[in-house]
Amino acid sequence: MTYQELLDNARKYMQPHCMACPECNGKACTNKMPGPGSKGSGDGANRNYEAWKDIRVNMDTIHPLFEPDTTFDFFGQKMKYPIFAGPVGAVNMHYGDKYNDVEYNNILVKACADAGIAAFTGDGMFQEVLVAASKAIAACGGCGVPTVKPWDANTLKEKFKLVEESNCSVVAMDIDAAGLPFLKNCDPPTGAKSVEELAEIVKMAGKPFIVKGIMTVKGALKAQKAGAKGIVVSNHGGRVLDQCPSTAEVLPDIADAVGDDMMVLVDGGIRSGVDVFKALALGAHGVIIARPYVTALYGGVEEGVKFYTEKIGQELADTMKMCGAKSLADINEEMIWW
Amino acid sequence: MTYQELLDNARKYMQPHCMACPECNGKACTNKMPGPGSKGSGDGANRNYEAWKDIRVNMDTIHPLFEPDTTFDFFGQKMKYPIFAGPVGAVNMHYGDKYNDVEYNNILVKACADAGIAAFTGDGMFQEVLVAASKAIAACGGCGVPTVKPWDANTLKEKFKLVEESNCSVVAMDIDAAGLPFLKNCDPPTGAKSVEELAEIVKMAGKPFIVKGIMTVKGALKAQKAGAKGIVVSNHGGRVLDQCPSTAEVLPDIADAVGDDMMVLVDGGIRSGVDVFKALALGAHGVIIARPYVTALYGGVEEGVKFYTEKIGQELADTMKMCGAKSLADINEEMIWW
Amino acid sequence: MTYQELLDNARKYMQPHCMACPECNGKACTNKMPGPGSKGSGDGANRNYEAWKDIRVNMDTIHPLFEPDTTFDFFGQKMKYPIFAGPVGAVNMHYGDKYNDVEYNNILVKACADAGIAAFTGDGMFQEVLVAASKAIAACGGCGVPTVKPWDANTLKEKFKLVEESNCSVVAMDIDAAGLPFLKNCDPPTGAKSVEELAEIVKMAGKPFIVKGIMTVKGALKAQKAGAKGIVVSNHGGRVLDQCPSTAEVLPDIADAVGDDMMVLVDGGIRSGVDVFKALALGAHGVIIARPYVTALYGGVEEGVKFYTEKIGQELADTMKMCGAKSLADINEEMIWW
Amino acid sequence: MTYQELLDNARKYMQPHCMACPECNGKACTNKMPGPGSKGSGDGANRNYEAWKDIRVNMDTIHPLFEPDTTFDFFGQKMKYPIFAGPVGAVNMHYGDKYNDVEYNNILVKACADAGIAAFTGDGMFQEVLVAASKAIAACGGCGVPTVKPWDANTLKEKFKLVEESNCSVVAMDIDAAGLPFLKNCDPPTGAKSVEELAEIVKMAGKPFIVKGIMTVKGALKAQKAGAKGIVVSNHGGRVLDQCPSTAEVLPDIADAVGDDMMVLVDGGIRSGVDVFKALALGAHGVIIARPYVTALYGGVEEGVKFYTEKIGQELADTMKMCGAKSLADINEEMIWW
Repeated sequence: MTYQELLDNARKYMQPHCMACPECNGKACTNKMPGPGSKGSGDGANRNYEAWKDIRVNMDTIHPLFEPDTTFDFFGQKMKYPIFAGPVGAVNMHYGDKYNDVEYNNILVKACADAGIAAFTGDGMFQEVLVAASKAIAACGGCGVPTVKPWDANTLKEKFKLVEESNCSVVAMDIDAAGLPFLKNCDPPTGAKSVEELAEIVKMAGKPFIVKGIMTVKGALKAQKAGAKGIVVSNHGGRVLDQCPSTAEVLPDIADAVGDDMMVLVDGGIRSGVDVFKALALGAHGVIIARPYVTALYGGVEEGVKFYTEKIGQELADTMKMCGAKSLADINEEMIWW
Repeated sequence: MTYQELLDNARKYMQPHCMACPECNGKACTNKMPGPGSKGSGDGANRNYEAWKDIRVNMDTIHPLFEPDTTFDFFGQKMKYPIFAGPVGAVNMHYGDKYNDVEYNNILVKACADAGIAAFTGDGMFQEVLVAASKAIAACGGCGVPTVKPWDANTLKEKFKLVEESNCSVVAMDIDAAGLPFLKNCDPPTGAKSVEELAEIVKMAGKPFIVKGIMTVKGALKAQKAGAKGIVVSNHGGRVLDQCPSTAEVLPDIADAVGDDMMVLVDGGIRSGVDVFKALALGAHGVIIARPYVTALYGGVEEGVKFYTEKIGQELADTMKMCGAKSLADINEEMIWW
Repeated sequence: MTYQELLDNARKYMQPHCMACPECNGKACTNKMPGPGSKGSGDGANRNYEAWKDIRVNMDTIHPLFEPDTTFDFFGQKMKYPIFAGPVGAVNMHYGDKYNDVEYNNILVKACADAGIAAFTGDGMFQEVLVAASKAIAACGGCGVPTVKPWDANTLKEKFKLVEESNCSVVAMDIDAAGLPFLKNCDPPTGAKSVEELAEIVKMAGKPFIVKGIMTVKGALKAQKAGAKGIVVSNHGGRVLDQCPSTAEVLPDIADAVGDDMMVLVDGGIRSGVDVFKALALGAHGVIIARPYVTALYGGVEEGVKFYTEKIGQELADTMKMCGAKSLADINEEMIWW
Repeated sequence: MTYQELLDNARKYMQPHCMACPECNGKACTNKMPGPGSKGSGDGANRNYEAWKDIRVNMDTIHPLFEPDTTFDFFGQKMKYPIFAGPVGAVNMHYGDKYNDVEYNNILVKACADAGIAAFTGDGMFQEVLVAASKAIAACGGCGVPTVKPWDANTLKEKFKLVEESNCSVVAMDIDAAGLPFLKNCDPPTGAKSVEELAEIVKMAGKPFIVKGIMTVKGALKAQKAGAKGIVVSNHGGRVLDQCPSTAEVLPDIADAVGDDMMVLVDGGIRSGVDVFKALALGAHGVIIARPYVTALYGGVEEGVKFYTEKIGQELADTMKMCGAKSLADINEEMIWW
């Protein structure tokens, strides 16, 4: 399998929702919803993608020859690469009806675990999505991160019970989902949480808790204050609010602010192992890649997911060799140019 | 009605003057006059539009859940949103002969008032435009802002008499109209006003007075010195002078300079509620949107105007929720990235 | 006559050498030589043009109403506008064989004088060009600026004798012509001049002397030291050296350095009265426009030249009104945004 | 021969691998491998090319007339221009099967020597390439720079024996070749070298040693510490690591850091004598041009190589005349604008 073949195959199932572009940069799908596009003027995904291109890597091959160690400790789980497949929901609506959310997560969670990484799973209107995701994660020994929407406290209590089945070691919430159309008119209302409410939720979860959708230093510090153990610097690929800054632009200050106690992940337009390297150099511990994993799965099922993971992971390893980083901890700001 | 349908319908009446583009950015109509385009090299409207895109909003949903309050006190009148429809003149010439200025203003003023906002009405060569606009505003209980051209003192005296009929609470003058071709060769001459002349005019108006067409700190301070209660930071959409800076570029310094005593409005390329949010974060109290209201009216008559107002207003409300601003007063510079 | 008609007509005679583009920006003729294009990568003319677009004008119409005074004292001659038609040579080769240099200068010099401005005339391989140009200038009472190439001293002595016939009050030399192919292999060699050589030439000229082709502060100070009374900040439209900075970029420092004793002109991509205004705000006393005058002449003969002069001149007057500059001396750096 | 004819002829043999573009800027071949394109996102070559365009030259022709001296002392060899043809390998695969590496080097080395400059020759999987290159260099009196890959110490010992035959005065190693696919899985492993290993290699070479592929100050200082007499600031045209900075961006700091003791060459997107001038102004002593020499050779064999060398060399001489640099040593940072 080549990446081109994977894309060609994916296109059969995903068009016209997603064009499975050679580089997934948000241009062909600007403002397409349903579809993978971003909201409003639709430049959110473009900016995410382009911001990484403005950061360059400092090649230096005068160092001892080594095989780079790309492994990553994720709350006690050893991952092969600091790469996660992102949570997506309503795949049939946004990417084509070859799969529904349950089928999609079943394939994704296992394929990722087999590839040595973990998938974040999505949450939705229908309970069954989370039920199935939890089962899939459980079947992989807890390798996966169930991600719940910012429901009201009672709903969340039920959600966390389902999550419990997954045997996962971490749970996440995409708190920015407040901006998704389908969550707007919920009763009881969903969305934003005060620090106090979030602290309650973190306790209720009973596991290390990751808040996804942080774009400011203030927000990161509030998540930290609420007891979260990790954050995902994310603007939800431009799908919840139009015209945010790119995640690469805000990452360095946020990573600096939270210090070393928190797990910092980042998503948005990361499309190669070189980009992963840059994210780590800017202070992230790992990255989430979302849309391209959908393409990989639609185009190549389990094999596609594994192939894509190895592609990105090996690009990261190559970059580490060419810049002199033996392990992920060696990757630092001096290794990039911006 | 969707916005797409509204645009499709508008295009029937507006082409080839205006193409009713999905995003009204001044590109398709560069230097088209008559038509909606801007003057000379025609990049005035483009730059206005693009400058807003360079300002990004800081998403943060860790805060108590609230319903944002978008209401706005405009010289004692309570508005649903800090949004005004802009004054336009010679609509039949610039946008298509479905309407003349009298018909256009009649529809616009009432539809805006019904939608909870106010329209600025234009002024022209023919007395009847202002007569009719004043009547339309009066019929809506004074909801509307009659806008006069910078005529000589005697002509203005007559204009203000007509304005009196409108029962409006504010009156405006687009002092930059000096640069419009049709005002160039007037006798007596029209155009620029000294601070002293402007002070006389402000007195003559006998109501809170807004000077539209301010692009410099100096100009703003002169308007303030002349007794104006408000300004509109505006380059007339590029139609009176080629190659001005964009309004977003000059707004922050101007808003800082005039302090809190003046009502600061801004126009030029504001095309979404996210843009409205940014304008307020940069120091404006409200915004004027001109060309897209013409499109909304040509494409959907009263309903179009109301639909468009709700579209922009709800986008503003969404942005407030996603950035943690409960009321317009909460929107501040920390909520944007630039 | 409209400008569009003038261009349409010009195109008949100038294609394929020059496309008489709506805005003459060096894009359609990149690296076309013979033709109007610039040398090498050909981005010299583009950059000149674009640099002016990055400078914006500060509209402010709160000031007394006035008719702007655009007149300009050019070494004792009163000009209607601070605008000069530029020197061009080998017009038949570069712009089409409707005219040769002698015919071209005959028309241009008279039309400019009639329009209240002056033309710079070019110099070339054949003596007759300067002979005819001098006669044409003499016939207009000395209104015109003969421009000689940087020949060797003996040749220049003869050239200045011819120039004497013109009764002109100023003479110029395009010292950067060293980079033109046709001057490269002259015997005796032509081109660069030391300060001492230049001082000799200035004396020999016996009139106020302008050095054209200054792009650095150092060069300007050397011209001043050699006794020149004026300089033209110019990169010869990109035709003598590839990849110079734009003239707008280097003008401010140069104007600052030479102080008020020297006449500072600038050329390169100035295509509207708004651009002329900006050049003056950046420290120039006047501007030279070259290619568009060729188009005006090919497209409209004498009338074309006059029409184009009034077009640019009136745009300058409009800009002065809209920015509050009563006379050219009032135009200052506070009136632009950059 | 014109350059256009040379390109037209080259295209016959090089398409579809290389399009022999009028300006070789990496755009038509983005990410084409095999082929001349760069790796990954493929913007490496583009950025190299464009960075030079952002640096402009300061024209100043007020100076004594001179014939510029472009000669260059390269480790005791007098070169006509500070220009080298770059090492390429697997030409049949990347550029078309008109030539193989042995044939290509045979023509290139001699043509360069005849033109007064030197060629770097490539190294590959097959011993015969270096054998033949060494013979070709020997036949030209040692004019040429054999360039070896970063093999393991034993392999290098053999390579250096072959190099000995060439009678060359300098030898080079492209240490960044670690990132080339064909070197990845070698046994014993090839690639990065520690300072100590490099110092051993430098000694083993027994001649002045140039390390090619330096992109950081740190790397340059390590090469210096290892005893190298020269470096080539190079990102291998984007072919070994995606998304490096451009060489023009990193050159000035590196040249500053190593001081005057080291020979500093630079490659990447240098496509004219004006670019060569800029490189020298930024601190380089000479430049390497790779892809265009392939085109010159495929399109014009020996004559093509000589023609291209004279083209670039004369452009450099012209630029020196127009900026007042009598010799290469006169070219300094004051002569550029950036």
